[in-house]
Amino acid sequence: MAKELTTRVQDYSQWYNDLVLKGELADYSAVRGCMVIKPYGYALWENMQAALDKMFKDTGHQNAYFPLFVPKSLFEAEEKNAEGFAKECAIVTHYRLKTDPNNKGKLMVDPEAKLEEELIVRPTSEAIIWSTYKTWIQSYRDLPILVNQWANVVRWEMRTRLFLRTAEFLWQEGHTAHATKEEAIAETVQMLDVYADFAENWMAMPVIKGIKTASERFAGAEDTYCIEALMQDGKALQAGTSHFLGQNFAKAFDVKFSDKNNKLDYVWATSWGVSTRLIGGLVMTHSDDEGLVLPPRIAPIQVVIVPIYKGEEQKAVLDEKIGAIVASFKAAGIRVKYDNSDNARPGWKFAEYELKGVPIRIAVGARDLENNQVELARRDTKEKSSVSMDGLTETVSNLLLEIQSHLLERAKKYRDEHITEVNSWDEFLQTLDGKAGFVSAHWDGTAETEEKIKELSKATIRCIPLNNKLEEGNCILTGNPSKQRVLFARAY
Amino acid sequence: MAKELTTRVQDYSQWYNDLVLKGELADYSAVRGCMVIKPYGYALWENMQAALDKMFKDTGHQNAYFPLFVPKSLFEAEEKNAEGFAKECAIVTHYRLKTDPNNKGKLMVDPEAKLEEELIVRPTSEAIIWSTYKTWIQSYRDLPILVNQWANVVRWEMRTRLFLRTAEFLWQEGHTAHATKEEAIAETVQMLDVYADFAENWMAMPVIKGIKTASERFAGAEDTYCIEALMQDGKALQAGTSHFLGQNFAKAFDVKFSDKNNKLDYVWATSWGVSTRLIGGLVMTHSDDEGLVLPPRIAPIQVVIVPIYKGEEQKAVLDEKIGAIVASFKAAGIRVKYDNSDNARPGWKFAEYELKGVPIRIAVGARDLENNQVELARRDTKEKSSVSMDGLTETVSNLLLEIQSHLLERAKKYRDEHITEVNSWDEFLQTLDGKAGFVSAHWDGTAETEEKIKELSKATIRCIPLNNKLEEGNCILTGNPSKQRVLFARAY
Repeated sequence: MAKELTTRVQDYSQWYNDLVLKGELADYSAVRGCMVIKPYGYALWENMQAALDKMFKDTGHQNAYFPLFVPKSLFEAEEKNAEGFAKECAIVTHYRLKTDPNNKGKLMVDPEAKLEEELIVRPTSEAIIWSTYKTWIQSYRDLPILVNQWANVVRWEMRTRLFLRTAEFLWQEGHTAHATKEEAIAETVQMLDVYADFAENWMAMPVIKGIKTASERFAGAEDTYCIEALMQDGKALQAGTSHFLGQNFAKAFDVKFSDKNNKLDYVWATSWGVSTRLIGGLVMTHSDDEGLVLPPRIAPIQVVIVPIYKGEEQKAVLDEKIGAIVASFKAAGIRVKYDNSDNARPGWKFAEYELKGVPIRIAVGARDLENNQVELARRDTKEKSSVSMDGLTETVSNLLLEIQSHLLERAKKYRDEHITEVNSWDEFLQTLDGKAGFVSAHWDGTAETEEKIKELSKATIRCIPLNNKLEEGNCILTGNPSKQRVLFARAY
Repeated sequence: MAKELTTRVQDYSQWYNDLVLKGELADYSAVRGCMVIKPYGYALWENMQAALDKMFKDTGHQNAYFPLFVPKSLFEAEEKNAEGFAKECAIVTHYRLKTDPNNKGKLMVDPEAKLEEELIVRPTSEAIIWSTYKTWIQSYRDLPILVNQWANVVRWEMRTRLFLRTAEFLWQEGHTAHATKEEAIAETVQMLDVYADFAENWMAMPVIKGIKTASERFAGAEDTYCIEALMQDGKALQAGTSHFLGQNFAKAFDVKFSDKNNKLDYVWATSWGVSTRLIGGLVMTHSDDEGLVLPPRIAPIQVVIVPIYKGEEQKAVLDEKIGAIVASFKAAGIRVKYDNSDNARPGWKFAEYELKGVPIRIAVGARDLENNQVELARRDTKEKSSVSMDGLTETVSNLLLEIQSHLLERAKKYRDEHITEVNSWDEFLQTLDGKAGFVSAHWDGTAETEEKIKELSKATIRCIPLNNKLEEGNCILTGNPSKQRVLFARAY
C-alpha cells in the first residue's frame, strides 16, 4: 500500500515533514534537535557536495579540516561573533565518565575530570581557523589562503525542523585570507555567484542575490551577502551566505602580514557557507502532494525502470531486455535503478518512486516488448507517453535536461509572480497575509523601523537586492524618505 | 632554502613529526590533542576516501549520517562498549554561554543552561545507530542494512601524536544489520578484505589479516578482525578493524526482527572502520630522510614539472612547450602540477617536492628542448634519467604504475624480513630489542600470559593470522602447550 501523505492545503508544515520522513530523506533521532540523514537523503547531499566541491576547486580553493572544538578563550576573542553565538552553544566541560557507585551498570560524569578551560562545539569556525591562520601568515607571499571545510556544526536551536533548523547540521564553510580589501570583497561576491549558480543550475531553485541589512548580518561580518529563495507557501528561505569579514578576525587574533614594502597590516577575510538546509529548500521548491520532485542533476536516482509481468517466464524476458537498456543508460552516465523486486506490485512501486521524486519512470510490459516501446512518465508534469525503444538512451538523456530546465522555469515563474511591489502599510500587511511571497517596499534605512516592521508583521528584510534600482519613495511604516525598495518576507 | 629534516637514525619520532609538519600534511592546533589537517594532507585523505567509498559502494553499501552526540542513557546501554570508552569521552553538559558579570568582554558557562541528560561526543556510533535501527527494522524484509558513515569522532587520549592518535579524528564507520550470524560474519570478513585490498593496492602498504585476542577486542564485539602493518622502526600499526558484534547491540537496544516463519530474533551486527590514522601509517611505511614518499594512486600531485630558465624569453618558450605536456598529462588522468613560480629557484623546488613525496619530478631546460628530452626523477629510488618528449605521457603513466608496484614490493620485502619466528623467551626479547618487527611465537592462549608478556616486554599480540598454520609448540613464557603461533610486536 502506498504511504499516505498530508496535502499542502491540509497542513503545509505536516506535508513537509511527511515528505522528508516518508520520502526517506531523514529521520528523527534520540538526540534533541538532531536528525539522522538516511541513505536516500545522504545520496542527494553527496550529489550536491560533489557539484559544489568542484565549483570551489575550479575557483582555486582547497579543502582542509580544523578541530571540532573551540577553547572558550578563542571563542570569545572576536566579541561580536562570540555574542552572536553564545546563546546557542553546546559546551564540553568534562572528559571522562565513571561508574556510578549508587546506580549499578550506569555511568556518571567524573567530577575529577573537569576541563580547565571549557570547549565550545563549533557553531562556525572563524575563531579556530583564524587562530591557526596566525601561524600560517607572515608575508603577502602567504596570501591569499583559499580554504574550504566540509564539516558538522552545532547550534543549540530551541525550535528545530528537519533540515531547515537542526541542532547539528552538515555544511561547508569557506574561510579565505587576503592582502587587500578589494580582493576580499571580490572573493565574497564570487562565492555568492557560485552559490547562485549552484542553486539555479543544479537545484533548479531560483534565488535573489542581495545584501543583508546591518541587523541581519552574520555576527562579526562587515557585510553579509545572501541568496534568498521562495518556498511554495510564500515564505522565504535564506539559502546561502557569503560574508566580507573586513579585518575583524585578523584584529581579534592579531594576524598581520608584511606587504611588498615591508609594511605590516591586518589581513582581510571572508567566510561563506551553505548547509543541509538547502535540502529543505529543495523539498519546498518543487515537491507536490504526491511527494518529492527532485531535479535530475542531483537526484540520486534519475530513472527508475519497473517491469510489468506475469510469471517467471515473462520476467526473464524483461530482465534480459531491460538489462541491456540499463547498461546503455549507465554508459551514458544516467543514474538508473531497475526495480524487479518481487515484494511489491507495480502500482505500489509507481507510488513509491513518485514519493521519492525520481524524475523519470519507465514501465515495460510484455506488450511493450512486442511493440518495441516503453511507457515513460515524467515526475514533474506527470505526463505519460509511449516512446520507442530505439534511441531510448538519447530520448531519456534529453528528457532529463528538459525536466531540469522545466523545474527551474516553473519555480522562477512562481517566484516572479510572488514579488509584489507595495506602497503603503495596509497594502504591505494585506500582501503578506494574502498572496505572501517577497514584498518589495520602501524602508527608511533605520534599524528601529526594521525592528518595528518585524514586530508588527513578522516579516523581515530578506535582502537589499544587488544592482538594485534606485528610486525615490517613502518608507511604508514611517513615511520617511527612501532611495530604494528592499525585499521583505516572512521567512524560515 | 630547503627545510631541515631530522633523520630516522637521529630521532625516528622527530623525523615523523618533521615530515608531517614540514611536508604540510597537518599542523598542531590550539585545542589539546586535536590537529589541523592542512590542504595537502586533506587532498591525500580525499583520494583515500574516494577509493574506499567506491569500494564500499561496489560491495552494496550506502552512506548515511547519524548525530554527533549520544545521550548518556544510550551510551551506557551496551555495557562493555560503554565501559571501554567511558574513560576517554568528551561530555557536553551545558547548552549556553552568558556574559561574565565579573569579567568584562568575557563569557562563562550559563549554570542555568545545564542539560537534563549529558551528551557524549561520539567516540564511535554503535549506540546512536542501533537506537535508530530499532525503528527501521521489523522484519527480515528490512535486512540487511548496509550503511557507512564518514564522520569525526572524539576519544580523549592522554598522549597524542599527529594522525596516529589524536583526540578528534576523521574516519568511516560501517554499521550493518543482518538476519543471520553467518551473513554477519561473512560481512565482517568481506570488509576486512576490502581494507586489505585498499591498504595494499592503493597505499602500497602490505598488511597481515588476522583476529584479535579477547583482550584486544573492540569493546562490545564478539570478534575483532584486523589488518596489521609494519612501520620502518619495526613497530606494528593496527591499520583497520572489522568487528563481528554478534547480537550484543541488538540485545542492548532491543532490536528484533521477524523471520520468514514469523519467529522473532535479535538482529546480527557488524561494524568496521579505518581513520586518518592510515596517513600516519603511510608516512612511516614509505618515507625516507629526504621527506615523504607517496604512492602514485593516492598522491595529491603525481608529477611535478619544474622549468629551468634564464630570463623571460626562455621562460615563455618553456611555458608554451610544457603547457602542451600538462594538457596531455591531464587528458590521461595524471594529476600534474607545473610550478613555474618565480619566487624560488629550481634547487629549492626540487627539495620541496621531494619533501612532499611527489612520485615523479620532471625538469625541463632550454637545452632539453633542443634535444627533445626532459629530465625525469623518481622519488622512490631517486633515479634520474633523460627521456624523450615523444610519448612522454605514456612513459610517465607507465612509470607511475611501476613506482606504485615498486613501493609495495619494497615494503613487502621489508615486512617479510621482519617477521621472525622465535622459540624461547630470551630469543623473544632479543628479537624485540634488536631486529624488532613482528615476532611469531607460541602462546598458551590465556589472557593472563598475554598480559604478563605485555608487562615484561611491552609487546602485544597483534593478531592471530587468518588461515594460520596449526603447529604444536610451547608458550614462550609459560612453556604450556600451544597449537599455533601468533604475531607479537611493539605497536603504535
